[in-house]
Amino acid sequence: MTPEERLQREGLALPAPHPLVANYARTVRTGSLLFVSGHGPFVDGQPAYMGKLGAEVTVENGQKAAATVMLNLLGTLKAELGELSRVSRFVKLLVFVNATPDFAEHHLVANGATDLLVKAFGDFGRPTRSAVGTASLPFNFAVELEAIVELRD
Amino acid sequence: MTPEERLQREGLALPAPHPLVANYARTVRTGSLLFVSGHGPFVDGQPAYMGKLGAEVTVENGQKAAATVMLNLLGTLKAELGELSRVSRFVKLLVFVNATPDFAEHHLVANGATDLLVKAFGDFGRPTRSAVGTASLPFNFAVELEAIVELRD
Amino acid sequence: MTPEERLQREGLALPAPHPLVANYARTVRTGSLLFVSGHGPFVDGQPAYMGKLGAEVTVENGQKAAATVMLNLLGTLKAELGELSRVSRFVKLLVFVNATPDFAEHHLVANGATDLLVKAFGDFGRPTRSAVGTASLPFNFAVELEAIVELRD
Repeated sequence: MTPEERLQREGLALPAPHPLVANYARTVRTGSLLFVSGHGPFVDGQPAYMGKLGAEVTVENGQKAAATVMLNLLGTLKAELGELSRVSRFVKLLVFVNATPDFAEHHLVANGATDLLVKAFGDFGRPTRSAVGTASLPFNFAVELEAIVELRD
Repeated sequence: MTPEERLQREGLALPAPHPLVANYARTVRTGSLLFVSGHGPFVDGQPAYMGKLGAEVTVENGQKAAATVMLNLLGTLKAELGELSRVSRFVKLLVFVNATPDFAEHHLVANGATDLLVKAFGDFGRPTRSAVGTASLPFNFAVELEAIVELRD
Repeated sequence: MTPEERLQREGLALPAPHPLVANYARTVRTGSLLFVSGHGPFVDGQPAYMGKLGAEVTVENGQKAAATVMLNLLGTLKAELGELSRVSRFVKLLVFVNATPDFAEHHLVANGATDLLVKAFGDFGRPTRSAVGTASLPFNFAVELEAIVELRD
């Protein structure tokens, strides 16, 4: 089964990349690595999941936000690569959680993203990861993700 | 035209690298990639652009801070590589914006850095990027940047 | 002398990797690079050094926290690689310091980590580095570190 089929089985459709909001590239390839820019949680092309963990956003909604960002990031990979199976390994994920000073469960929020990756890619989707609490994020997003993936060819 | 000539046309001179403030390397090369340490906004060897976006630093001054950091980072590349044209691709930029909890325009601040890159290198200067809000930064800098570049040789 | 012997000379023993607290991989290798996930300061398998720089954690204790995280990270490398001498170069360190909005000495805290690296590996242990202040960190850790290392084989 392809990653696309596995996502479909979960009822998840890959969104088209949302418009670039600033002066940068969505992805850059160097050697066998593809670097992917920071993504936010867009639903139907509109920003969703705004606010801070530890305040108005619960851990459960933070996990949904992280999964939504990951789905957007996979949508970008689909648009750039044609087929998700060209990814041989998710190498690295950096998870920025918009959080209050006393929040301490960033790792649980980040599971929303990595759980989705493992569903789509199996063990090769399980990346190295850091999860940290930012003071704020663009558009007041609850979660932002950037990634490095290894390509098969 | 070389990147150095393009910068000169903009009236911008590459500064010498400022002294290392701690125990780390300015750059490390591995394969064709050069990793560049976090840089701050120095002008004439002195820290400049201190404070937080969302408080005492405006978005316009934040963009100037980001451009200043990028100029310092290019100064480091010039000192390490001899010629900026040895850079074949700006791969990745991580933009740390010293920001209040309610600031939401980090992506506009970060454009101060990437606009300068595109001026100097054209499309090959447009990197992948994340922009996030930190609670604080060393020396109370308004912006800190780290980079990964691909070398031609 | 091996890195292990140098650490032993300092009275430092490499800890076993602590249990994974979430859904991610401790390390992922791609080409000659090994990416290492974010680590926290564990002592005897228990979280240690909690709280914020600029508040209840002094710079001196922050440096001890950073050294402790680095020792845990080296313990992970030892478990994954067998011998630390398989690391040919510490390429990159990202230092997240749990800090108040007015803290400004993140670079001094981060020296706790890089000083230890240089003791263990000599000049090849001196990485590129960024040090930034996060609003919060998982488990309220004072410091979190992620790394990229180059392998010899």
